[in-house]
Amino acid sequence: MNIQSVYHSILTPLTFIERNRQVYPNKTAIIYGEQRFTYSQFAARIHRLASALQDTGMEVGDRVAFFCFNIPPMLEAHFAVPLAGGVLVSINTRLTSQELAYILNDCGAKFLFLDTELADIIRPIQDSLKTVKYIINIADVPGFTSVDGEDYEAFLNTGSPEPLPWAVTDELETITINYTSGTSGKPKGVMYSHRGAYLNSLGEIIETNLTPTSVYLWTLPMFHCNGWCFTWAVTAIGGTHICLRKFHPAKVWQLIQQESVTHLNAAPVILISLLNYADCPQQLTTPLTITTAGAPPSPTLIEKISQIGAKIIHVYGLTEVYGPYTVCEYQSEWDDLSIAEKSRLIARQGVPYITGDGLRVVDKNMQDVPKDGLTMGEVVMRGNMVMTGYYNDPEYTAKAFHGGWFHSGDLAVVHPDGYIEVRDRIKDIIITNGENVSSIEVEQCLYRHEAVLECAVIAVPHEKRGEVPKAFVTLKEGATVTAQELITFCRSQIANFKCPLTVEFTTLPKTSTGKIQKYLLRAKEWAGHTR
Amino acid sequence: MNIQSVYHSILTPLTFIERNRQVYPNKTAIIYGEQRFTYSQFAARIHRLASALQDTGMEVGDRVAFFCFNIPPMLEAHFAVPLAGGVLVSINTRLTSQELAYILNDCGAKFLFLDTELADIIRPIQDSLKTVKYIINIADVPGFTSVDGEDYEAFLNTGSPEPLPWAVTDELETITINYTSGTSGKPKGVMYSHRGAYLNSLGEIIETNLTPTSVYLWTLPMFHCNGWCFTWAVTAIGGTHICLRKFHPAKVWQLIQQESVTHLNAAPVILISLLNYADCPQQLTTPLTITTAGAPPSPTLIEKISQIGAKIIHVYGLTEVYGPYTVCEYQSEWDDLSIAEKSRLIARQGVPYITGDGLRVVDKNMQDVPKDGLTMGEVVMRGNMVMTGYYNDPEYTAKAFHGGWFHSGDLAVVHPDGYIEVRDRIKDIIITNGENVSSIEVEQCLYRHEAVLECAVIAVPHEKRGEVPKAFVTLKEGATVTAQELITFCRSQIANFKCPLTVEFTTLPKTSTGKIQKYLLRAKEWAGHTR
Repeated sequence: MNIQSVYHSILTPLTFIERNRQVYPNKTAIIYGEQRFTYSQFAARIHRLASALQDTGMEVGDRVAFFCFNIPPMLEAHFAVPLAGGVLVSINTRLTSQELAYILNDCGAKFLFLDTELADIIRPIQDSLKTVKYIINIADVPGFTSVDGEDYEAFLNTGSPEPLPWAVTDELETITINYTSGTSGKPKGVMYSHRGAYLNSLGEIIETNLTPTSVYLWTLPMFHCNGWCFTWAVTAIGGTHICLRKFHPAKVWQLIQQESVTHLNAAPVILISLLNYADCPQQLTTPLTITTAGAPPSPTLIEKISQIGAKIIHVYGLTEVYGPYTVCEYQSEWDDLSIAEKSRLIARQGVPYITGDGLRVVDKNMQDVPKDGLTMGEVVMRGNMVMTGYYNDPEYTAKAFHGGWFHSGDLAVVHPDGYIEVRDRIKDIIITNGENVSSIEVEQCLYRHEAVLECAVIAVPHEKRGEVPKAFVTLKEGATVTAQELITFCRSQIANFKCPLTVEFTTLPKTSTGKIQKYLLRAKEWAGHTR
Repeated sequence: MNIQSVYHSILTPLTFIERNRQVYPNKTAIIYGEQRFTYSQFAARIHRLASALQDTGMEVGDRVAFFCFNIPPMLEAHFAVPLAGGVLVSINTRLTSQELAYILNDCGAKFLFLDTELADIIRPIQDSLKTVKYIINIADVPGFTSVDGEDYEAFLNTGSPEPLPWAVTDELETITINYTSGTSGKPKGVMYSHRGAYLNSLGEIIETNLTPTSVYLWTLPMFHCNGWCFTWAVTAIGGTHICLRKFHPAKVWQLIQQESVTHLNAAPVILISLLNYADCPQQLTTPLTITTAGAPPSPTLIEKISQIGAKIIHVYGLTEVYGPYTVCEYQSEWDDLSIAEKSRLIARQGVPYITGDGLRVVDKNMQDVPKDGLTMGEVVMRGNMVMTGYYNDPEYTAKAFHGGWFHSGDLAVVHPDGYIEVRDRIKDIIITNGENVSSIEVEQCLYRHEAVLECAVIAVPHEKRGEVPKAFVTLKEGATVTAQELITFCRSQIANFKCPLTVEFTTLPKTSTGKIQKYLLRAKEWAGHTR
């Protein structure tokens, strides 16, 4: 007998569904429109999918790609693919055909599960897919034409609903690969391990206080860091997933109230559109916890969220750290502060999760910057919440891990209380006349103006000063303000050299996860110049 | 560079204090009478203790024994000893001199930290301690004479408050050794690992819903499974520990109300004494979560707890599984049941913790018993919540781990819903005329009688039937009932052969953790007989 097998079991999210099919067999695991799946049904569908994959010739380590919206099959995939011994690759639904072809070939996917609404993205590239042997169509909504291949429900029905043993023998094996957005080059495949996914899931449960009575609404795409590991975490705690094929404010508010939603995650831009929506309720009947990341929430946003009876948790992370790595832990001594002061504190990225092990802000020689709230350095992280590397790219991995830490590419300061505040992406910082200007600081300033709905500040070329800040602004419906008025407003709030020289009123380009794509704005402004 | 060091960090509770000295430096970590320690002070004292131990010649793996009550130094020891590279052995304060000598020699303790109130237990055996080189006196209350050795606070002052790196290189290294009560032979040293302690702590946070605003009252002795890992768990979440040198109902109620306690753990017998105490409040102002184990809570107890506005969580475990391993997860479909029916469901031991990996009830051939609520089998467990073995006793470890599972020695049934219900210790079961009678079932029946405060049912020898049940009963103050009336009451509730033939009114012998010591009752009854 291997004695260690008695007291050392593999850390893997697979234990979560195995437990809860037994503990909560009759409890609702998934709600999707009129559909309802209990934990017992959810598990049976997972077993069917896993055994169908194995029966079709899936081997240990094979990559299985899912290209679909926030629907039940995507949740099923998060358990079934690793259960069958495979690696899940869930892909951003807003990609172009070429981007998709690159990712499918890079990861060498053997299976492709395809939402038929997205079939037109596949068709032009089907011949260039070198490794895909099987395509399974998920005909979730009618009116779209499948590509050649089996139907998802028919495929499931070839499998057995009985539990099957899993093939994981080392908790550091890869469970999923998540591709970065590739704003600076080719997308890179970020590898998550079973151990990391397990510990990140427990971290999310603890930091966002998920309980067995939690009802989680899927506003965040599941293809984004496996939904920040909430695909596994909500299942782990025995909560209820509410699937939402596509984000729409009206639908979101309806579900929040109808299903007594307790938790959702979304970037501030998504929250802004939600709270500015006409049907936003005055007061929620069920306490709602909103976890936000991607940009610091503005004071206005924080105040509005609190007014409707919701609570905000500000977290920060990247694809390379399974989604969130830090959380702005609330301190009870903030209770007595003004809303403005409190918001300023909450808008910081904060401290490591309970499951995080190392967070530093360092200069180029890997020395910690002083805790002065002023000196910028790069955010570096390490430990069980960090990816195991980039798929098939040991060189880029070594570069990202140099000095024994994962390098985020984000610039931050450390405040005297130890909380970090991200000032910018290294590439977004504006260097004007030798001075560093944080584009985020200027944006935060603009957001304090009542007419501003959304904004982005970037560096644009300038003959004398090298580069200067320029603002792109979308105004609230019905609001009017001139460029000069906004500039004057900024000058009343922050140093002159930080203020935008020009303001352009426009709609902002965004990624599928709601992040503003500054690189697109920059590309236009820097055409013909070298930065 | 070892690339794995970037994404694989050691799971150890040491990260908890390291994190929270930075996240919550000014938050109250420990309250003890008039004393208050912030997380920053708590950490500084831990660093002092750890470096003082190292400076005194502690080497990696050395055992450090603590023989004291629920006071701040005991919490400090849970972090300082492993931080210095040592193994903590916290010892039951109610042991005799001989038992203590056995444990100190068995674990080979180099250091002994001694509460001076307990010095008289040490004095007679001081010469027989083969390995103890240093004794440090903790003079927590005045009026007791120290033994030869340094004073705790003076010892701390020889150390440095600065953080020191830890020596753990393998997460399966031993962090603590906890001795079993030794009711069936010599006490055995149960080894906990850093990994197990870390995961059990996260499990406790999730299952009992600890949050950063939690205030935990130390009614459970810290020497009992390291306080079910709450020594680490409460620190991990950044909650507040309230130390309590000795249990007294008046003091407990006073602290609960004065400090707005949110969580405490205690065996049902302790809770009974608490709720029957004259000053028990009608209604608590802060919601209180009581986690109980050691025996199933009676319907009356469950009802009373709910009446004062508290919530009960019923868990089950053993020293060998870091304290609790199962929890009776509440199902929302129980909401509409009568209190009697609900209590019957809650009194079951339930299902594995979220961090538990394997729980079975098996017959002698390691086959699962049917889920019929009737067939008894032995509870076996495996995974990260199981000890790594008995210290210096590979043979006994192999016996306890036979078949690849830890054998609990507890007999249980599995209900159709998968919840287990412990019927008895294997040695407590009564075999009368070839029929198995669960002593717990008979006790549960007696507890339903309004005059009964506490009871214990054991097997006593019987000429014809081999053995028969006998009840030992303590009545509530002022209550009167005859033995015959109690027997008649039992016959109206359970099968005749299960009912006690005799009833003795007496006070019950108990362990320091409040467990009734049936073996003492049995010893008297079986004198001159072989069982």
